[in-house]
Amino acid sequence: MPPAKPFVGIDLGGTNIQFGVVSPEMKLIGEAKRKTKAEEKLDGVLGRIEAGIEEACAEAGVEVSALGGIGIGAPGAVDPIKGVVLEAVNLRWDDVPLAEILTKRLKIKTFLDNDVNAAVYGENRLGAGKNAKNILGVWIGTGIGGGLILNGELYYGHYLTAGEIGHTVLFPNLPRGIRSLEQNCSRTSIVDRLVKLIRANHKSKVTGEVGDEFEKIKSRTLARYYREGEKEDKLVIEVVDAAADLLGQSIGSIVTLLSLPRVVLGGGLTEALGPVFVERVERVVKEVAFPDACKKVDVVESSLEDNAGVFGAAMIAMERGGGK
Amino acid sequence: MPPAKPFVGIDLGGTNIQFGVVSPEMKLIGEAKRKTKAEEKLDGVLGRIEAGIEEACAEAGVEVSALGGIGIGAPGAVDPIKGVVLEAVNLRWDDVPLAEILTKRLKIKTFLDNDVNAAVYGENRLGAGKNAKNILGVWIGTGIGGGLILNGELYYGHYLTAGEIGHTVLFPNLPRGIRSLEQNCSRTSIVDRLVKLIRANHKSKVTGEVGDEFEKIKSRTLARYYREGEKEDKLVIEVVDAAADLLGQSIGSIVTLLSLPRVVLGGGLTEALGPVFVERVERVVKEVAFPDACKKVDVVESSLEDNAGVFGAAMIAMERGGGK
Repeated sequence: MPPAKPFVGIDLGGTNIQFGVVSPEMKLIGEAKRKTKAEEKLDGVLGRIEAGIEEACAEAGVEVSALGGIGIGAPGAVDPIKGVVLEAVNLRWDDVPLAEILTKRLKIKTFLDNDVNAAVYGENRLGAGKNAKNILGVWIGTGIGGGLILNGELYYGHYLTAGEIGHTVLFPNLPRGIRSLEQNCSRTSIVDRLVKLIRANHKSKVTGEVGDEFEKIKSRTLARYYREGEKEDKLVIEVVDAAADLLGQSIGSIVTLLSLPRVVLGGGLTEALGPVFVERVERVVKEVAFPDACKKVDVVESSLEDNAGVFGAAMIAMERGGGK
Repeated sequence: MPPAKPFVGIDLGGTNIQFGVVSPEMKLIGEAKRKTKAEEKLDGVLGRIEAGIEEACAEAGVEVSALGGIGIGAPGAVDPIKGVVLEAVNLRWDDVPLAEILTKRLKIKTFLDNDVNAAVYGENRLGAGKNAKNILGVWIGTGIGGGLILNGELYYGHYLTAGEIGHTVLFPNLPRGIRSLEQNCSRTSIVDRLVKLIRANHKSKVTGEVGDEFEKIKSRTLARYYREGEKEDKLVIEVVDAAADLLGQSIGSIVTLLSLPRVVLGGGLTEALGPVFVERVERVVKEVAFPDACKKVDVVESSLEDNAGVFGAAMIAMERGGGK
């Protein structure tokens, strides 16, 4: 058996790319971060991926050529077997054979999965989903992604696209474009709603901070005015709570359908809003879950937080690449 | 190895109980039917179950004592391992250890599962779900039940209650009691809606048939006035189509979440309304499914129809009881 090697895990998001070198002892021994800048097309993104890998490896004191493999989690619909990004709206990519491209360019075997699958896999093996055999992970940020562990393994489904909770219908009588969970409960949608209300002359302390530069409202802005400390703002609380309640109803329905004991919430918005938000979602999930047995479900915050995707991607590569 | 024996499959519904003797060659060699009459309490129902088993066995020319086992599908939440009906609203049962009771009374090993699980299992092994490894079954009648085959096996989930699609939230902003899929799309709900409209002076040909005895409106009544033949009735079409579209949205979301290639629709209402109804549901499911890959999903009608539950229950007993 060859000596155990470090693996690189990459979390490719619509805004940022995160890189981590994971040692055989499951320690994060090198990190890097790059902007995604998807508007600069595939080649630009690929260049930043390579540079990020090199930087993280340099920090870890590891040659890229000494890696056991690379795992990458990409947003949207992904074929994890062929290693193809089928449809990633955030990246404006269609049918990009990312694993093959990177394997060729870097001469290191690269494995691809959906970003939330990777994060949920990380949580299942090392984090808040440890020891649970059936888990729904919901990652709330720019968009909403999901991943499922069923009977102890990542569940992919027939077309290998399972977990896309963000694209399930939330309001069945509304037209396409405004009816999905993502279109109502992502950070983007929450901010849109808040801005709409502010423009309709509802008062919010947020305007004191950002004026009319509403594009400055990030997850951390919402968090500053949400149910914690003296800055509490009624309008922010109203829109965030409405989204939390809707998330709870959707997630509760999936707990009912799949009889799940644990739900892990992650993503930028969850991390920023923290336990108060997670507890609110949990309350609704428990209210909705059927039958009573399912009300025992735990809704917990990602414990690897920012690093869930990086760890999970590295571990997926380890598992598929044979763990050399 | 002892010689192969026949098994009895039982489909225990809120209204009727169906019995079938299934030969080792998977032929239905004896049948019986009884009213459930849940209002006469557990003992009454148990008596009718025993009588039905005896009648079906007599028709098959088989001694009850010669059975290899009995499989029974019961509505609501069921623990298939302990053989307990946890919560069956239709039967007004809570925590009834049905498998144990019947095993003791009949001295034949009896296995329990959810009724729709049994039907979907039957369809997966012998019917419309043959050769599909991932299937959602939705049974629409008095209520709405569901069952899941994932990775080729019945999926139970952590609390063993998976599949309860009827109890998922359809309208998240409505209060409990009117927001679930079952509360909007079961035959009961469809008839309630129709009657409400008729009482509000909407015209319907149905009143020509039933007058004001609205309790006479059954699935077959709806079918007579729905999109087929000259009896077509605008109001019936309107309420049934609205339910079909809502079902399509819910099912499409589950196809998205679980990346499913096949959905089997069954139950009394589906059988009565037939292909026109199933095709309407399918159209909406394909519209809703994400990503495009999932739009290849087939929505098909149960091919074992009335006998899916009986076959499936018998086959579950065969499989769990060792197939003797």
